[in-house]
Amino acid sequence: MTDSNETDVQIDALRSLLRQGDIAAFRESFLDWHSYEQGQFYLELSEEERHIVYSYLSPEELADMFDMIEEEDEDVKEYLAEMRPSYAAAMLGHMYPDNAADILKQLDKPAVAQYMSIMAAEKALDLKELLHYEDETAGAIMTTEYVSIVANQTVKSALNLLKMKAKKAEIIYYVYVIDESEHLVGVISLRDLLVGEDDEMIFDIMSERVISAKIGDGQEDIAQVIRDYDLLALPVTDYDDHLLGIITVDDIIDVIDDEAASDYSGLAGVDVDVTNENPLKASSKRLPWLITLLFLGMSTATLINHYEVLISEASILAVFISLITGTAGNAGTQSLAVAVRRLAVSDDKDENFLKLILSEIMTGVLTGLITGLVIFVVVGIWKGNFILGLVIGIAMFCAIIVANLAGSLIPMLMERLGFDPAVASGPFITTLSDLTSVLIYFNIAGLFMNFFIN
Amino acid sequence: MTDSNETDVQIDALRSLLRQGDIAAFRESFLDWHSYEQGQFYLELSEEERHIVYSYLSPEELADMFDMIEEEDEDVKEYLAEMRPSYAAAMLGHMYPDNAADILKQLDKPAVAQYMSIMAAEKALDLKELLHYEDETAGAIMTTEYVSIVANQTVKSALNLLKMKAKKAEIIYYVYVIDESEHLVGVISLRDLLVGEDDEMIFDIMSERVISAKIGDGQEDIAQVIRDYDLLALPVTDYDDHLLGIITVDDIIDVIDDEAASDYSGLAGVDVDVTNENPLKASSKRLPWLITLLFLGMSTATLINHYEVLISEASILAVFISLITGTAGNAGTQSLAVAVRRLAVSDDKDENFLKLILSEIMTGVLTGLITGLVIFVVVGIWKGNFILGLVIGIAMFCAIIVANLAGSLIPMLMERLGFDPAVASGPFITTLSDLTSVLIYFNIAGLFMNFFIN
Repeated sequence: MTDSNETDVQIDALRSLLRQGDIAAFRESFLDWHSYEQGQFYLELSEEERHIVYSYLSPEELADMFDMIEEEDEDVKEYLAEMRPSYAAAMLGHMYPDNAADILKQLDKPAVAQYMSIMAAEKALDLKELLHYEDETAGAIMTTEYVSIVANQTVKSALNLLKMKAKKAEIIYYVYVIDESEHLVGVISLRDLLVGEDDEMIFDIMSERVISAKIGDGQEDIAQVIRDYDLLALPVTDYDDHLLGIITVDDIIDVIDDEAASDYSGLAGVDVDVTNENPLKASSKRLPWLITLLFLGMSTATLINHYEVLISEASILAVFISLITGTAGNAGTQSLAVAVRRLAVSDDKDENFLKLILSEIMTGVLTGLITGLVIFVVVGIWKGNFILGLVIGIAMFCAIIVANLAGSLIPMLMERLGFDPAVASGPFITTLSDLTSVLIYFNIAGLFMNFFIN
Repeated sequence: MTDSNETDVQIDALRSLLRQGDIAAFRESFLDWHSYEQGQFYLELSEEERHIVYSYLSPEELADMFDMIEEEDEDVKEYLAEMRPSYAAAMLGHMYPDNAADILKQLDKPAVAQYMSIMAAEKALDLKELLHYEDETAGAIMTTEYVSIVANQTVKSALNLLKMKAKKAEIIYYVYVIDESEHLVGVISLRDLLVGEDDEMIFDIMSERVISAKIGDGQEDIAQVIRDYDLLALPVTDYDDHLLGIITVDDIIDVIDDEAASDYSGLAGVDVDVTNENPLKASSKRLPWLITLLFLGMSTATLINHYEVLISEASILAVFISLITGTAGNAGTQSLAVAVRRLAVSDDKDENFLKLILSEIMTGVLTGLITGLVIFVVVGIWKGNFILGLVIGIAMFCAIIVANLAGSLIPMLMERLGFDPAVASGPFITTLSDLTSVLIYFNIAGLFMNFFIN
C-alpha cells in the first residue's frame, strides 16, 4: 500500500514543478500518476495553482481526474466556476456520462444550460437524459458508455469491434448483445470472447440469461444483485427491454458505503458523513437533534411532575426511574437496529407485515419476561420488599414490550409512508420510550401504592 | 431484475426434475443457471435431495456453485460432512482457493487433514498457505489464481498466454508483470493488451506504478484503496515485493458490508447479521446485553438510592432525572457514532490523539452550553424557579461534556488496546452516562439544597 509520507513528498515535488512553470516535466509526472492520485494532488492546490493546471492540461486529461474526484458538491461547483466555460464544458463532455451528470445535478439551471450549449450535441443529449432520472434509481447511477454488439457475427469480428470501442467504454469486460431494435438479448464476457474460437458465432456462445435491472429500480436493490451475483457491471433496460446503460461495480461500492453511513447516522441521530470537523461545525450538526429531543424529553419530565405527589409519598419510586427508562430504551434500540437492517437487506419488502409484528411482540414478551424476572428478584432481595420488586418487574416487562414494538413499527411505518426508515433514529426511539416507560411505571406503582406509603 | 415469483416457479420445476430422476434434463437446466441461482436452489433442498445432486453433478460443477454460496459456517460444514470425502476434497480443490480456505477454516483439524491428503498435492499446498494467514488481513482474503506474465514478450504472446490461463484465473482483466524472481514489477489491463499492437513489448506499455497491498495489511485499509482507485483487483505481495496473490472486488464488497454491519451492530448493542429469526433466537441474542446493562443500570439505581433523602425532601428533583440522563445519553451516542466512524474510515490512525480529545471536549462544551441554557430558561419559566433551572442547566452542561468524552474516548481506547472499537456499543455508553449524569445531577442539586426544601 502506498505510504502516506511518500505520497506527501511526491505531491510537494509535483507542486514545485507546477510553480516553476516547467510544463513538460509537470505533465510527464502528473500523467504518469493514477487518476485518483492526480485528484488528491489537485484537491491540495490553491486557486492560483489550479489555474496553472488548467493551462497545462487538456480538458480530456482533466476529465480522467475529475472522474475519480468524490468531493463535496460545494467544492466541485467552485472548481467548475473558475474554469473558462468552454474548457469546463469540454471537460464534462470527456467525463463518463454518469459522473458528469452527478456534477451537473449540483449546478444552477443557467450554468447547466450554458455548458450543454457549448458541448457536442450528441454528448449533451446523453447527459440531458441522465439528468432526468430520479435520484437513487438505476437511471441516476448508470453510465451510457458500454459496449454492445449484434449476435450475428463471429468472435473475431466482435473482438475487432471491441478493440475499437475499448478506449471510450467505462467497462469492456462484459459485452452486451442486442437485436436490431436494441433489445437486450444476451451477454458475453470478454473472457469467453478471448477463449472462444475466431469463427464461432456470438449467438452460439453468448448467455441468454442476462441479469439486468429496470431503469426505475432502486439503487439498494441493484447493489444487492451485483453483490449476490458477483458482477462487475449490470445492464439497465427500459420496461420494454431496450438496453439503456450499465451500472459498474465501483459506483455500487459507493452506494453500499452511502447506505451504510446513512443507516448508521440514523441510529445515532447525527450525520457522520464528515468525521473531521471543527467543534463549531460538529456542534451545529448535533444540536438540532439534541434540542428537539430535549423538548420531547420535557414531556417525560412533565409526566413525572404529574406523579410528584406519588414520589413525595414514596421516594423509593424515584430510584428506579432511570433503570426502567434505560433498559426499555436499550431494548428499543436493539429492535430498531434489527428492523432498519431488515428493511435495508430484505429482497422481499412485502413480507407479511403482521407476521413480523407478531414475531417482534413475541421477542418483546420473551426478553421482557426474563429481564422483568431478574429485576424482580434483585430488587426484592436488595430492598427486602418483593411487592416493590413486583412493581418494578411488571413495569419493566410492559415497558420493554412497548419499546420493542415502537422500535420495529416506526421504521416500518416510515418505509410504507415513503420515508427513509433510518431517519427514525435511535435517540428518538429511546426518548419516546422514556415517555411510555414512565407512564407505565407510575400507573403500575399507583395500583400498589398502599404498600409503599411510609 | 429477476422476479422472485418467477424464480420460485423455476426452482420448483428444477426440483421435480431432480425427484423424477431425469438426469439429462436436470443437468441441462441447472448448468444453464447462474451459479448464484444454483446456490439459492441448492440451499432449499432437503438432505435426501442434496444427495441426488451429488450424484448428478461433478465436483467441478458443484465447486462453481459453492464459490457463490455465502452461508452460515454451520450449514456449509454439514453439507461437506454429507458428501463422500473424496468428492468433497475434489470439490474444494476446484473452488477458488480463497473460498475453499474460508470453508476449511471452519472445519475441525482432522477433517482438514483428511481433505488435504486426498486433494492434488499442489492444490493442498496452496490452501495450506492461505490457511496460515491471520483473519481479516490481505493474506486471508486473497486468491492465488491470478495471471502473471514476464515483461520481455510481445502483446501477442501475452494474449496467447492469457487465453490459456483464462479458464482458471479468478479475474483476468488485470495481468500482473513479474521479473525472473517473481517480484511484482508492473501491471497491464486486458483493455490495454487488447488495444495494443501485436508486436509491442509488454515492458513498453505496462504501468510500473502498481498499487498493491502487503500480505499483512488489514482488510479495511484494502477496501479503502480498492474503493479510492476504483480497482477490480489488487495484487498482494510479501515484504520483499514477491507477488503472492490478488484480492478481487467482489470479496471487498463483502468486507465493506461486514464492517458496516459490525459497526452498526455495535452501536445498537445487538448482532444484526441475521434479520429474520424466530423470537426465541432473537431474544437469546438480545438478552445478554440487556441483562448486563441492567446490572450496570442497577449501579445508577443504587446511586439514586443513596440520594433518596434528598428526593424525599425535594421530590421535584425526581422530575428531571430522566431528562438529564436521556439528553446526556443522546449526546454520548452522537459522539460515539462519530468516533467509531472516524476510526473506521481514517487513513491515518495516528492522528493527534490529544487534538481529537480537545476538539471533542470543545464540541461537548458548545453543545452542553446551548442545551443547558435552553433547559435553564424552560425550567425557570415552567416552574417559576430560576434556581431550579440553574441546577438543571448546570447539571445538563456537565453531564453532556462527560458523555461526549466517554463516547469518543472509549472507542479510541478500545482501538489502542487492539479491540474492535465498535464493541463499545451505544447502549453501553448511554447506560454508563446515566450513572455519571445522576452523580453530577445530585451533587449539584445538593449544593443548592436550601432552595428546594419545602
